[in-house]
Amino acid sequence: MMYFKSDNTAAVAPEIMAALHEANQGFALAYGDDPWSAQLQERFSALFDHEVRVFPVATGTAANALALATLVPPWGAILTHEESHIVRDECGAPEFMTHGARLLLEAEPGAKITPVGLHRALDALPLSVHTVQPRALSITQATELGTVYSPDELRALTSAAHERGLRVHMDGARFANAVAHLGCTPADLTARAGVDVLSFGATKNGAMAAEAVIFFNQDLVADFEFRRKRAAHLFSKMRFLSAQLLAYIDNNLWLKLAARANAMAAEIGAAVPSRLLQPVQANEIFLRLGEQKIKQLREAGFAFYDWGSARSGEARFVVSWHQDPKEVETLVQSLRALESE
Amino acid sequence: MMYFKSDNTAAVAPEIMAALHEANQGFALAYGDDPWSAQLQERFSALFDHEVRVFPVATGTAANALALATLVPPWGAILTHEESHIVRDECGAPEFMTHGARLLLEAEPGAKITPVGLHRALDALPLSVHTVQPRALSITQATELGTVYSPDELRALTSAAHERGLRVHMDGARFANAVAHLGCTPADLTARAGVDVLSFGATKNGAMAAEAVIFFNQDLVADFEFRRKRAAHLFSKMRFLSAQLLAYIDNNLWLKLAARANAMAAEIGAAVPSRLLQPVQANEIFLRLGEQKIKQLREAGFAFYDWGSARSGEARFVVSWHQDPKEVETLVQSLRALESE
Amino acid sequence: MMYFKSDNTAAVAPEIMAALHEANQGFALAYGDDPWSAQLQERFSALFDHEVRVFPVATGTAANALALATLVPPWGAILTHEESHIVRDECGAPEFMTHGARLLLEAEPGAKITPVGLHRALDALPLSVHTVQPRALSITQATELGTVYSPDELRALTSAAHERGLRVHMDGARFANAVAHLGCTPADLTARAGVDVLSFGATKNGAMAAEAVIFFNQDLVADFEFRRKRAAHLFSKMRFLSAQLLAYIDNNLWLKLAARANAMAAEIGAAVPSRLLQPVQANEIFLRLGEQKIKQLREAGFAFYDWGSARSGEARFVVSWHQDPKEVETLVQSLRALESE
Amino acid sequence: MMYFKSDNTAAVAPEIMAALHEANQGFALAYGDDPWSAQLQERFSALFDHEVRVFPVATGTAANALALATLVPPWGAILTHEESHIVRDECGAPEFMTHGARLLLEAEPGAKITPVGLHRALDALPLSVHTVQPRALSITQATELGTVYSPDELRALTSAAHERGLRVHMDGARFANAVAHLGCTPADLTARAGVDVLSFGATKNGAMAAEAVIFFNQDLVADFEFRRKRAAHLFSKMRFLSAQLLAYIDNNLWLKLAARANAMAAEIGAAVPSRLLQPVQANEIFLRLGEQKIKQLREAGFAFYDWGSARSGEARFVVSWHQDPKEVETLVQSLRALESE
Repeated sequence: MMYFKSDNTAAVAPEIMAALHEANQGFALAYGDDPWSAQLQERFSALFDHEVRVFPVATGTAANALALATLVPPWGAILTHEESHIVRDECGAPEFMTHGARLLLEAEPGAKITPVGLHRALDALPLSVHTVQPRALSITQATELGTVYSPDELRALTSAAHERGLRVHMDGARFANAVAHLGCTPADLTARAGVDVLSFGATKNGAMAAEAVIFFNQDLVADFEFRRKRAAHLFSKMRFLSAQLLAYIDNNLWLKLAARANAMAAEIGAAVPSRLLQPVQANEIFLRLGEQKIKQLREAGFAFYDWGSARSGEARFVVSWHQDPKEVETLVQSLRALESE
Repeated sequence: MMYFKSDNTAAVAPEIMAALHEANQGFALAYGDDPWSAQLQERFSALFDHEVRVFPVATGTAANALALATLVPPWGAILTHEESHIVRDECGAPEFMTHGARLLLEAEPGAKITPVGLHRALDALPLSVHTVQPRALSITQATELGTVYSPDELRALTSAAHERGLRVHMDGARFANAVAHLGCTPADLTARAGVDVLSFGATKNGAMAAEAVIFFNQDLVADFEFRRKRAAHLFSKMRFLSAQLLAYIDNNLWLKLAARANAMAAEIGAAVPSRLLQPVQANEIFLRLGEQKIKQLREAGFAFYDWGSARSGEARFVVSWHQDPKEVETLVQSLRALESE
Repeated sequence: MMYFKSDNTAAVAPEIMAALHEANQGFALAYGDDPWSAQLQERFSALFDHEVRVFPVATGTAANALALATLVPPWGAILTHEESHIVRDECGAPEFMTHGARLLLEAEPGAKITPVGLHRALDALPLSVHTVQPRALSITQATELGTVYSPDELRALTSAAHERGLRVHMDGARFANAVAHLGCTPADLTARAGVDVLSFGATKNGAMAAEAVIFFNQDLVADFEFRRKRAAHLFSKMRFLSAQLLAYIDNNLWLKLAARANAMAAEIGAAVPSRLLQPVQANEIFLRLGEQKIKQLREAGFAFYDWGSARSGEARFVVSWHQDPKEVETLVQSLRALESE
Repeated sequence: MMYFKSDNTAAVAPEIMAALHEANQGFALAYGDDPWSAQLQERFSALFDHEVRVFPVATGTAANALALATLVPPWGAILTHEESHIVRDECGAPEFMTHGARLLLEAEPGAKITPVGLHRALDALPLSVHTVQPRALSITQATELGTVYSPDELRALTSAAHERGLRVHMDGARFANAVAHLGCTPADLTARAGVDVLSFGATKNGAMAAEAVIFFNQDLVADFEFRRKRAAHLFSKMRFLSAQLLAYIDNNLWLKLAARANAMAAEIGAAVPSRLLQPVQANEIFLRLGEQKIKQLREAGFAFYDWGSARSGEARFVVSWHQDPKEVETLVQSLRALESE
């Protein structure tokens, strides 16, 4: 089988395995009082060209839900796209961690929210003591449809959000892919773009299990540490989370891995441009293939997910850093062959 | 510094690091649909000589709190010892995961609960719609004071609990140390002793971050999988949790590591028998040393925690699988020297 | 001012005030062990021609949220109309009482959900451990737009819901108005129509503060009593809630009051049929008036709410049992006058 | 039967029934925008000689749990006496409303907490990210054992609490009885004694269902209104709650009713001084009678609760404003007769 199902199916990058080995020397104090964890604030502040606070966790859902819980009270609401991971793939973790805040769903093209959409959604909600209170906007970069917000788009959107009293959370499970695509700095998409808190993903892009919650607005950190501990996401042998994160950003590993995945995805997309449901800006390709062609591809050994509603004939392919270029080439050829049938 | 602060400060056992490497080959489906996770049910059922259901998580707090949430409703209560980890060291994670159930605290010697204590505690709580409803007993094996329940003690206690309508959870963060001490089978302390759910710890005894929630009563599993996902403890690259757990029980590694730690702990305890606050049955030693001797030991390079109330002159030493026998020997000699002053 | 803002602004019906007086004789055991509460099961079972379990609470939000909490787990989801009270007017009480379940919003005409809409909504949600689990349908009768489900519509809808594994909750804050409109029996809209739990409203229709949660499926009662107590909705002087509920159904008072309100509402609607946004089937009238006419009506002394989006020119009028027929007549004439301008 | 079981069994005082009637005239805006509610801030500020914020609710449990939820975060802890209502009689409502905060139990005589006890309890809890965080002290005035804190005792205790970073909540379900006993002003026991939030009870002392949450520190109000609404405790026909509260404090009705109950309780206590388990300072009498005498009293027609552990031979008698003096006299005589047997 050739796996294009998810970047979660990839192995751990060798550089990160090596870092785990290096961290496995001797004793180290638990719960973050270790030399690896001690470097995080400085290293990530440098990376983001901004004084940040960094908190390692082990899953993207933990990063998202804990970040959101810090931003909104139980009677709060989080404006987000209906395609977002926090809506579709976290079994209500945001509601759990926030003690019952509500997700307000937006449905704009490309899984991206615009200032116009944000204003329209909020205008439709007259506020009173009888209503939930919108307090956060959660966006995804790169989005669940493989598209990317430009720095300009982000600035306009976060301005609108802040103007309406919302804090801004960015789900960056594939943040590396967005930065690699845009060729900008991490700061351009976060601190300088008005993002308050980022879920900085590493697991999908080469780590074993490591994500970082990064606060750009330190006043917001507040009770995050209690929330993380209480949710059982404070690791005793924290050094192994921190070591993954350090190795991930060392020597731009994260961007190299993402660029590699992006390039392969672009190649696949370029094979069948007329079938693209979305522009390929990160490591995901969405294609309108028809049920027959989907069947043929599966028979040819490709593993991938159907997309959209039942029998839509749509399919999603995800490329990870770990993808074998030969398998990508095989997929490209298979797609072209189907095209010319 | 010679670390006797916690078994959390130890490194990962080489066998487990090797297993992580082996698991890092190629692609594997996410969220548990991988070959390593597929072996868990069978391997752990064999280990416990009982058809069990096994769910990997990454922290002991997650294991405990998720297990308890499965056993008690929000208006339930959990009878437990006041020394227990769920009371003292989890920042209210059990309350969080159960949506507000209450911990009812027992204070019996040796951090162990007896049937008499259990009945007395429950008798003092007349039940009605106005009261929380006791639904679970949570005990720790080995206990937070380094003591161990015998199979007989466990059977008597779980019988009393079941008779009173309580399910039994065992916090086995140091379960290996208890089994190694008693020389019995894992089943003798769980399935055959009336335990319903076990938090089977590996992290403190050689893993990187891996625990297993083990259900002996399969009817109780119920919604555990939703709870785990919703609490953000379902790992995408699950193979790495499962691989740790498999390596941990392969060739009795877990018992070898625990026996090694226990033996070193026993050696330390034997050096100053008259100062022992508790019998040394696992890998923890509690000593009444006096403030002066505590100071001297710290100056001699030993890192360990004070115990008890402020200025109690009591201290806790924890020995891990990873402890250097030379450091243990140095500690033994230092203790003897202090003794003969 | 002539109030057409809400049926919540009405006074308490004299029959219910009288019942409060009668209940205020001497001592009575607290928390429901009183003679008034003792009659509830039998009286309501007779009313609904079905063995029911009845639990008094004091607010409609309590009735709805506690009922829903009984039907869905924290990781559950509740399918409901986007116009529903539980979505718009309860500040997230359903999320609070359910410990974070999600509301899935449907947008069909007339604030009513159809089997087709229900199936479509559920089909769009592929289920897995990563998703919230739809477990309940919550509908409103009469709806927030003053429309009414027929018994046939209800049966078709609850069948679809049950087929898909959903329990059915009915928000009956204006249940009396629906029964009065249809001229059917209460059973036709509940027990015989497949409703599992009803929030039976009395407050809007003549009570001071009394609603009843009515279970038609007794297996579902489960832990309702603990939930009610824990949410602080178990009243010590319960006799006064029960006395209101008994007086409310005595001699068909509830239907008389509702019929009176309905008739006045129908009269208002009939004055300007071409302006109706919805058919007038209960005690609410929704009109497209334009901003100018809205302004004129307010200047003439009518108090009512704008409806729809800002500057939509739409307005909502609510008529209660307590409405002065002369004020209704004045409104009718004013509307006609505006019409002929 | 002559009821001495609870002040909850009493009827509503005639002055309060009259107020409900007066409030039942015509229309009034819902949810507190009515003329009765409009008077609350001023009237209660005058009563407490302090600018307060007042929020009516309908049950004492709602008042307590919502007040506490305002004071402590989910990972917070509330120090309270093990006899307190929030511990024994609210089915975990404080845990529910706080989203899982913990009650830390103190066991001092007379159901009263002292500064020494408070410091000792907190000293025993070393704080870290691993522990729940004590944030509030909750005391009861008059206590569940019918005793009363003096203003001096309160000041010393609240000073200690504030010094340790705790906010102070007072459960005043029987606050009237305490004020009546001490002959001081309400302010002496609250604003001037360092209380931050008071649950001001009326239901047990003559109201139908009305309590007030009173904030002396206005910064703490914060999100109380959202919490109340979300917990379904914001009443639509609020005027009826407010009217009860206004009538309750009009012309010192509350103190007259409490003084009456207190006097009758004192009379009962004076009949058998040697049997008193606690001094009679409010409207409750706790007696050591022996099982035989308890049986005889029940046979003589007195309804009251056993107290203490099973077969303790202890009993609790509660006297309400509504108690028939003749029944009190009969009880006094019966007690004396038993005494002289």
